[in-house]
Amino acid sequence: MKINLPKFNGSFKNKSFISIEQLTKNSEIKKIFRVAEQMKDIVVRKKPSNVLNGYCIAELFYQPSTRTFTSFLAAAKWLGAMTIPIHGMSAYSSAVKGESIEDTVRTIHQTTGADLIIIRHPGDNSTEIAAQASYVPIINAGSGKKEHPTQAILDLYTIKNELGRMKNLKVIFLGDLKYGRTIKSLGKLLTIVDKNLQLFLVSPKILKMPKKLVKEWRVRGVKVHETESLLEVLPQVDVLYVTRIQKEWFEVERKLSLYRKLKMVYDINLKTLRRAKKKMVEMHPLPRVGEIAYEVDNDPRAAYFRQMRNGLYTRMALLKLILLGS
Amino acid sequence: MKINLPKFNGSFKNKSFISIEQLTKNSEIKKIFRVAEQMKDIVVRKKPSNVLNGYCIAELFYQPSTRTFTSFLAAAKWLGAMTIPIHGMSAYSSAVKGESIEDTVRTIHQTTGADLIIIRHPGDNSTEIAAQASYVPIINAGSGKKEHPTQAILDLYTIKNELGRMKNLKVIFLGDLKYGRTIKSLGKLLTIVDKNLQLFLVSPKILKMPKKLVKEWRVRGVKVHETESLLEVLPQVDVLYVTRIQKEWFEVERKLSLYRKLKMVYDINLKTLRRAKKKMVEMHPLPRVGEIAYEVDNDPRAAYFRQMRNGLYTRMALLKLILLGS
Amino acid sequence: MKINLPKFNGSFKNKSFISIEQLTKNSEIKKIFRVAEQMKDIVVRKKPSNVLNGYCIAELFYQPSTRTFTSFLAAAKWLGAMTIPIHGMSAYSSAVKGESIEDTVRTIHQTTGADLIIIRHPGDNSTEIAAQASYVPIINAGSGKKEHPTQAILDLYTIKNELGRMKNLKVIFLGDLKYGRTIKSLGKLLTIVDKNLQLFLVSPKILKMPKKLVKEWRVRGVKVHETESLLEVLPQVDVLYVTRIQKEWFEVERKLSLYRKLKMVYDINLKTLRRAKKKMVEMHPLPRVGEIAYEVDNDPRAAYFRQMRNGLYTRMALLKLILLGS
Repeated sequence: MKINLPKFNGSFKNKSFISIEQLTKNSEIKKIFRVAEQMKDIVVRKKPSNVLNGYCIAELFYQPSTRTFTSFLAAAKWLGAMTIPIHGMSAYSSAVKGESIEDTVRTIHQTTGADLIIIRHPGDNSTEIAAQASYVPIINAGSGKKEHPTQAILDLYTIKNELGRMKNLKVIFLGDLKYGRTIKSLGKLLTIVDKNLQLFLVSPKILKMPKKLVKEWRVRGVKVHETESLLEVLPQVDVLYVTRIQKEWFEVERKLSLYRKLKMVYDINLKTLRRAKKKMVEMHPLPRVGEIAYEVDNDPRAAYFRQMRNGLYTRMALLKLILLGS
Repeated sequence: MKINLPKFNGSFKNKSFISIEQLTKNSEIKKIFRVAEQMKDIVVRKKPSNVLNGYCIAELFYQPSTRTFTSFLAAAKWLGAMTIPIHGMSAYSSAVKGESIEDTVRTIHQTTGADLIIIRHPGDNSTEIAAQASYVPIINAGSGKKEHPTQAILDLYTIKNELGRMKNLKVIFLGDLKYGRTIKSLGKLLTIVDKNLQLFLVSPKILKMPKKLVKEWRVRGVKVHETESLLEVLPQVDVLYVTRIQKEWFEVERKLSLYRKLKMVYDINLKTLRRAKKKMVEMHPLPRVGEIAYEVDNDPRAAYFRQMRNGLYTRMALLKLILLGS
Repeated sequence: MKINLPKFNGSFKNKSFISIEQLTKNSEIKKIFRVAEQMKDIVVRKKPSNVLNGYCIAELFYQPSTRTFTSFLAAAKWLGAMTIPIHGMSAYSSAVKGESIEDTVRTIHQTTGADLIIIRHPGDNSTEIAAQASYVPIINAGSGKKEHPTQAILDLYTIKNELGRMKNLKVIFLGDLKYGRTIKSLGKLLTIVDKNLQLFLVSPKILKMPKKLVKEWRVRGVKVHETESLLEVLPQVDVLYVTRIQKEWFEVERKLSLYRKLKMVYDINLKTLRRAKKKMVEMHPLPRVGEIAYEVDNDPRAAYFRQMRNGLYTRMALLKLILLGS
């Protein structure tokens, strides 16, 4: 199934946000970040806003999630919206009775008066299909292995906030580049804002970034360097984006000794960071399962918890921009 | 176990709503609908009310539900009530530890200060038993196979809104009339408001409406016509109420070829609707699993999504009437 | 793992509440109870407070719970706090993906802006570990078999409210004294406020209170009397605290006939209460599974449902004291 998603074309008002592909302009990203700054002020001063009073926001999650679910829920509440959070849709809803997602999003709008619906769903095209059928905008909070656009937004916002710039970046994507979706969306976003982007793709050979994507980036003018050695490229970069290497892939291919070897190289500790620049930002989408040692948490470059908080601010910004237009 | 439920006798104040049998007067139904109109105004204008500020409403759901659960939750929030929503009671509550429903409703009132408790439970008499034990009113949001009274209310409200009247109605109940609970409650409600009611019961022989109920309706003066042929009666009716024919009953009786034949007759598409009156309302309690084609959704007679919305308005009305009396 | 929890030392402001051991002074308990009285006023008059406007409170429950979960949720809402309730953490969260509780509490704070996090978790030391890692205070809503401190607070508050005093008490702990955690914490609390405390430990031999604890209480000057006979000591006591005797322990040891015999002695009915003083308070942490007959519910000494309500007031008090300091 191929559906054409409308580009934002400068305005977010009443539009679904399903894919990072809908963003095409630097100015769109800057607008989100500008509003995110105002949102930060609301949370830091502990002065909940009422700009979304009278608006109703529903969350439908068909898959496990703590951070994304609570982040959107809090975002809606900090802005004064009415919230209808539904977790465990797979277990507790009419989905059990065989209802299509098209009927579900229409129904939720009708039964609650929801003005916007946030969905996480295991199907790759699920939120796209939902957006087509829905009377109100849909936000994709993770659909299948394909898209998680608000994660990419918060990632880029973190880079900007930590480094003070989004240009002339040297960025490492580390770990599982084959299956990880976050880094692919972030890569796309970076190409919009940074004409001098240099990407260092560090991964074991069997988890390399798909060739198609590398080619696409090169066509757009990105300098892409692929390697298995983190230490070779670490000293020069501005951003170290860590993802989890999934043990299961190595088990399947009976290469556990390779896994253990790579893990030693790719797991980050304070010793690793000694090789990096003083002014660098270390990110991770979390949850982590050992690939960053706890001892790193207090290093000023470790930004993954601040990154989480930026999820709150950028999601507040998106809710506001989609519902109010500015 | 036989418990006598108090009739409303003109007033809803502080009374549990467990069964459609508690309604006996046309004026009671009109009162609910009058308040529902005011409620509609609140939602459509996006001006949340604060009439239930200081009131606390708890929802305890022991069974899967999207529409009813979110509908009540939103209804309470649009009126400014504090809400305590608990889904997955079977998995996450003290019910696991063997607590009786009598103790549970008392406990919820005590631990939260709830002024009203909405319950969905698999046991046929569960909400009745809960109402007897409770310190505060209980609303039945579906108990076993027996009762789902707020569904009947929203169904009748939909008929009134779509047709502009509740009198001289010709109504088809289609599909599984043996096990479906909604149509039975709606039938009862219709006999209260329409002295000239004509019911057309269209179903396969093995899913016919129980004789006892047909007899009861005839005693009350309803003209009841039973048939297996939808097209025979469709052209003359004002209301087509579709329910799902449950494949599993045919499987059990090894009559799958019969099921497929009936399904072709009973599944509604645009061609079917060509045989119906221009001014007619097509309803379905949803979720649907194929018995109404998607192509029908845009036909002006297709009222099932508006029907959903009426659930919000009528439930708001019931919460207000039970807690405030008017 | 041994972590040193900070004592309250007169102030609750910004401190985690993990263990009853943090309380050491009579004045601390009196402060909680004084604030609880103000909280009661808010609920009884149905005038929700806004003292916690701008504060965000998250609940993370990894285990089944109705009463504690809803009690904390309502407590936060009555005080005007923003709430982020997450039930079913084990099934729906990143815990599934192997995230540590340290990372989870930091993450929840970051994604929501939560100022306080309430946790129920099966691990004995889980909330202690969470408190060490957390940026904000943690309240233990039940961790493993070890601690459930807010239950002990509400229990003592109930004794004070029902009897009008916390001194010169004669108290029966009945039932499963070996595994029950509530009575152990309550015992500890009582030794702080009552220098003349007399404890009657009534249980089958195989479910006796651990010797270590009995010795500890005696060292603090408590008169402790152990017996298997309820009726021997019932006539003289001020408090009868009933807990459930867990059938499973007897099954394991193939002593079901013993279980049935004890059950007859220890199950409380109106006949049992005839042997007790007129001015006495009968308590139970609930849920009950037969150990108190329903006929007892209307006896003025049966305080277990009022005890539930006191959970709301005392939890409101703790939220207010921890977040605002007074």
